[in-house]
Amino acid sequence: MEKTCYFSPVVAQLSPYVPGEQPKLANLVKLNTNENPYPPSPQVIAAITQAAQQGLQLYPDPAATVLRQAIAAQHGLTLEQVFLGNGSDEVLAHVFFAFFQQNCPLLMPDISYSFYQVYCRLYGIEVRTVPLDVSLQLRVADYATDRAVAGVVLANPNAPTGMGLPLSDIECLLQMHPNRVVLVDEAYVDFGGQSAVGLIDRYPNLLVVHTLSKSRSLAGLRIGYACGQAHLIDALTRVKNSFNSYPLDRLAIAGGVAAFEDRAYFEQTCQAVMSSREGLVLALEDLGFVVLPSQTNFVFARHPKVDAAQLATNLRQRGVLVRHFNQARIEQYLRISIGTLHQCDQLVMTLTEILQPVVDR
Amino acid sequence: MEKTCYFSPVVAQLSPYVPGEQPKLANLVKLNTNENPYPPSPQVIAAITQAAQQGLQLYPDPAATVLRQAIAAQHGLTLEQVFLGNGSDEVLAHVFFAFFQQNCPLLMPDISYSFYQVYCRLYGIEVRTVPLDVSLQLRVADYATDRAVAGVVLANPNAPTGMGLPLSDIECLLQMHPNRVVLVDEAYVDFGGQSAVGLIDRYPNLLVVHTLSKSRSLAGLRIGYACGQAHLIDALTRVKNSFNSYPLDRLAIAGGVAAFEDRAYFEQTCQAVMSSREGLVLALEDLGFVVLPSQTNFVFARHPKVDAAQLATNLRQRGVLVRHFNQARIEQYLRISIGTLHQCDQLVMTLTEILQPVVDR
Repeated sequence: MEKTCYFSPVVAQLSPYVPGEQPKLANLVKLNTNENPYPPSPQVIAAITQAAQQGLQLYPDPAATVLRQAIAAQHGLTLEQVFLGNGSDEVLAHVFFAFFQQNCPLLMPDISYSFYQVYCRLYGIEVRTVPLDVSLQLRVADYATDRAVAGVVLANPNAPTGMGLPLSDIECLLQMHPNRVVLVDEAYVDFGGQSAVGLIDRYPNLLVVHTLSKSRSLAGLRIGYACGQAHLIDALTRVKNSFNSYPLDRLAIAGGVAAFEDRAYFEQTCQAVMSSREGLVLALEDLGFVVLPSQTNFVFARHPKVDAAQLATNLRQRGVLVRHFNQARIEQYLRISIGTLHQCDQLVMTLTEILQPVVDR
Repeated sequence: MEKTCYFSPVVAQLSPYVPGEQPKLANLVKLNTNENPYPPSPQVIAAITQAAQQGLQLYPDPAATVLRQAIAAQHGLTLEQVFLGNGSDEVLAHVFFAFFQQNCPLLMPDISYSFYQVYCRLYGIEVRTVPLDVSLQLRVADYATDRAVAGVVLANPNAPTGMGLPLSDIECLLQMHPNRVVLVDEAYVDFGGQSAVGLIDRYPNLLVVHTLSKSRSLAGLRIGYACGQAHLIDALTRVKNSFNSYPLDRLAIAGGVAAFEDRAYFEQTCQAVMSSREGLVLALEDLGFVVLPSQTNFVFARHPKVDAAQLATNLRQRGVLVRHFNQARIEQYLRISIGTLHQCDQLVMTLTEILQPVVDR
């Protein structure tokens, strides 16, 4: 008997997201999944240690109110304007379910976070991709349309290009589609982008998504959130409470609060990453790379004389992981996370070794 | 403008699950959400404390392999027969999505875990409830039907009745619906029920769901899992990887492994709960309650002379929380979690106070 007879029909059509490799080998220079090279604040670790010792046998607060309060305070919002999830991927999934199942296409850049299209297949949402321009920049004018759309989703700064849009462009999109949600994924915004959170009170159709995985050094703890007017947060909460009442465990709630409390550590590590980035860009350019201007904790770069897939393979053989996307228009780029100064040095030294014969030719 | 214009049409139809109250007051005798009265194993807390100190800035293993291995070893299964999620509620949600969207009704008891019907509304799955018999027992013969069904879901032992089915009844259901998944939710099985995990190799349509929230004292950590043949686990993994790549954080993975390693603590606390239950049942019967036979960490009881909703209110006024369901057929019952011996004593003393005037009449 065919075993797939048990599956819901939609399951056969899924083509899941493929996360970057999480190797179990030690001693790799791991610059492939945009993690922060610095550990979280010591206050986070202390808060988790304390929370582990009290009441793990009890359910967490299903509304995770203390963490939502910390986030609201951080952004000058109210508690009712904050929605929490088990990583921003879960938050995004609920946003797609709650707002974009509209029997008309969702607009998104042709090159962006690839999980967006995965959610659309999961929930049967039609996609209309809008090409970035020849310099891989997003042009908001290309999002104007007379036809019905389900909404707009974009990452700002965009991934994997690393390039950001000014807030005036975000406002333009919000005004272009007043009856649909415009989702701005700001996973990387703390490394030099402009946040749209300040626009929330003026735009009832704006949702902004953040994660603690990048600038707060907490990829291992799984916390993401959405900010928007209360009516949008209400819809997300209804979906969440129809899916999983308790998405954040007690340790994530405690650690997340501590991460927002230690503001000095946050600013210091963001500055360190941005400073490393500036040095890495110069070093890569010295090696002949063309590097897109980055507002994130990674750079997107190509070498005019070397095939990117081959380069990624050569790097891996030498213990350095970067990310290559086998996708039209960007197959000659590598996405390289910003490591510590030492990791950046190791990358540059390894690239120098690999490129020497090429550059000498 | 009507703000719901932004919502996907399905959102308006949701009526979310309502979890039991998680009060922030101290000193309550909290017997309303079936938590374990004992803390987790000290080994769990040690493992979490250690994991918090190393690498929280890095993503967890998306497949959580070490925890799936520990679960597989526990049950005599292979790694490919275990699926993990962020609490069994998330696991259940993915099961409903992956198997029960079939354009025909899903069979379930009229009285069971109320989240099952919430998932059906979320995913547009038609429900056909099958009434428990007059003694609130499930009769498998009632699940025979000539019409197409999407599958069968039941909790064994059932909640909130606490009563279990023998494995012969589960086998009967599996043979009755060979082309559909039969989902057996064993959240409470470690307190005296019979697990169907041993049937997995013989039945390609069997999925068994467990949680670490009850018998492993980890409601605060959010870990649940499904066991079944590899083809069913594959489908769940495809859905999971289309929703959230990393549902379990690093601390949950580490703590979960430790929970399975400390088998002696697990057995000791399960025994303590079952022993408290036997004492509580006798005490409740002395007070005039009719108590259904429980194979879980709660009892389901009614008092022939006292309205259950009123009794729950009176208990709450005296600092004791129990759960009352305002639902036909069970509105005269209370679901009471098994606490520590001291908590059980406090409950019985408080009930004695409340009932004295009634019983004297």
